[in-house]
Amino acid sequence: MAMEGYRGFLGLLVSALLVGFLSVIFTLIWVLHYREGLGWDAREPEFNWHPVLVVTGFVFIQGIAIIVYRLPWTWKCSKLLMKGIHAGLNAVAAVLAIISLVAVFDFHNGKNIPNMYSLHSWVGLIAVILYMLQLLLGVSVFLLPLAPLSLRALLMPIHVYSGLLIFGTVIATALMGVTEKLIFSVKNPAYNTLPPEGVFTNTLGLLILVFGALIFWIVTRPQWKRPKEPNSILLQPNGGAPEGVDGPTAVHFGNMDKSDSELNSEAAARKRNIALDETGQRSTM
Amino acid sequence: MAMEGYRGFLGLLVSALLVGFLSVIFTLIWVLHYREGLGWDAREPEFNWHPVLVVTGFVFIQGIAIIVYRLPWTWKCSKLLMKGIHAGLNAVAAVLAIISLVAVFDFHNGKNIPNMYSLHSWVGLIAVILYMLQLLLGVSVFLLPLAPLSLRALLMPIHVYSGLLIFGTVIATALMGVTEKLIFSVKNPAYNTLPPEGVFTNTLGLLILVFGALIFWIVTRPQWKRPKEPNSILLQPNGGAPEGVDGPTAVHFGNMDKSDSELNSEAAARKRNIALDETGQRSTM
Repeated sequence: MAMEGYRGFLGLLVSALLVGFLSVIFTLIWVLHYREGLGWDAREPEFNWHPVLVVTGFVFIQGIAIIVYRLPWTWKCSKLLMKGIHAGLNAVAAVLAIISLVAVFDFHNGKNIPNMYSLHSWVGLIAVILYMLQLLLGVSVFLLPLAPLSLRALLMPIHVYSGLLIFGTVIATALMGVTEKLIFSVKNPAYNTLPPEGVFTNTLGLLILVFGALIFWIVTRPQWKRPKEPNSILLQPNGGAPEGVDGPTAVHFGNMDKSDSELNSEAAARKRNIALDETGQRSTM
Repeated sequence: MAMEGYRGFLGLLVSALLVGFLSVIFTLIWVLHYREGLGWDAREPEFNWHPVLVVTGFVFIQGIAIIVYRLPWTWKCSKLLMKGIHAGLNAVAAVLAIISLVAVFDFHNGKNIPNMYSLHSWVGLIAVILYMLQLLLGVSVFLLPLAPLSLRALLMPIHVYSGLLIFGTVIATALMGVTEKLIFSVKNPAYNTLPPEGVFTNTLGLLILVFGALIFWIVTRPQWKRPKEPNSILLQPNGGAPEGVDGPTAVHFGNMDKSDSELNSEAAARKRNIALDETGQRSTM
């Protein structure tokens, strides 16, 4: 299926993949070349799994999971398959995030460093908890065929918003983490003399930020949305209904093209766009 | 003019104002009670203007500037007036951001602390430069009656996206700044023993994050957009044109209601929404 502005999409997608991949590579070089390498010994090499797993899973894989519906090559795949891939990638990111937390708590306990005192740890733990809830709620409501359509319609804008909010919060938390670690660990020469490790790891922070910016651009362009399914369900927003349609918040249109001709007023078009376009994805049975 | 979901909007607006105001108050209490107060002496009291001015201007005022078009009480005011208020609030925030930079550079120079070595300083300076460019470009293109409509239509989605990206980046930078300052300055008892100042200032970080989350929710709800002007200009996106309309990217409809009846297809409604609704604001002459 043709995509409007396909070349622009491709350029941005390749840039996002490149910058995301570079972020992971930079994190690996940081811990392997500048820091103590990787290990599982309740010392620095165990801590180092924390940034590696966060940048790989919670930043890169989560970012790809966010835009996976927009890849035009997947538009011929079923929506259910794509939901499975979206949920699967987020589940992988969640597992890596959990292991990254185990690594840092284990390191702290091994070195008698207190846990959960910094703003980084507060915001990071909140982000992980919200991410788990988001994943659980997303699978229960949108992937499994259990939730009524009205609930899906009600929760979809919240799901999209909270997904992007958590992703942005994870990036902010990663930047705080880089800041903390550089101040704590770059001592000889000190971080404030801007040694090679400082320049390198600040650059890693910028790469993570640019990756987030690219994902946000890709996911907020309306012309790059996955097209509606031929037999999709039209969900109305909470309290909204097309003109002339009273009653329940969920309205089933068997054929979208046919229903379109009935929705030709400004108000109806606007409300339909709230239901279908605003969410960034569409709920189908 | 009636707003859909007015009570929800009001609740979120009051919450945003409250949390934003609390962030400013918390910052003042932090520097006045826990730190060295305020002054202009190239020592700690001068540094303390940095967080106060950033949270007041670059976070709180910028956040209000972002949602100012959505206040329903302003919908009877002219779009030009609202653009002036939007630009004016952002200009105030820009001035405060610049003074906050002067404070921190002056403090560093007075104490022989190097400038621009941390990730916080890199991202923060980039955010300030981008904010100035955004303000300059916004005034030149959207406020002054100079730019052709095609340029306005082309730049509006970029203006909205970069505005929100800069706002998010400023919040991430503020959280990095809180992290840095607490590690550097909370020594007796140390930050990692979670003393009252640590709890208090971590809470400030959470308030800033919640303020950002509220602004993002308010600004991304389609039903809370300022309604179109009666004699507004319909701008088409780059390369897009309603069905049956060939040629230039900017199309003038003298009366929106009349033109609506001509735009009753799915494709046209979608394209119109790209041009007018997606941007979060509308460009008028």
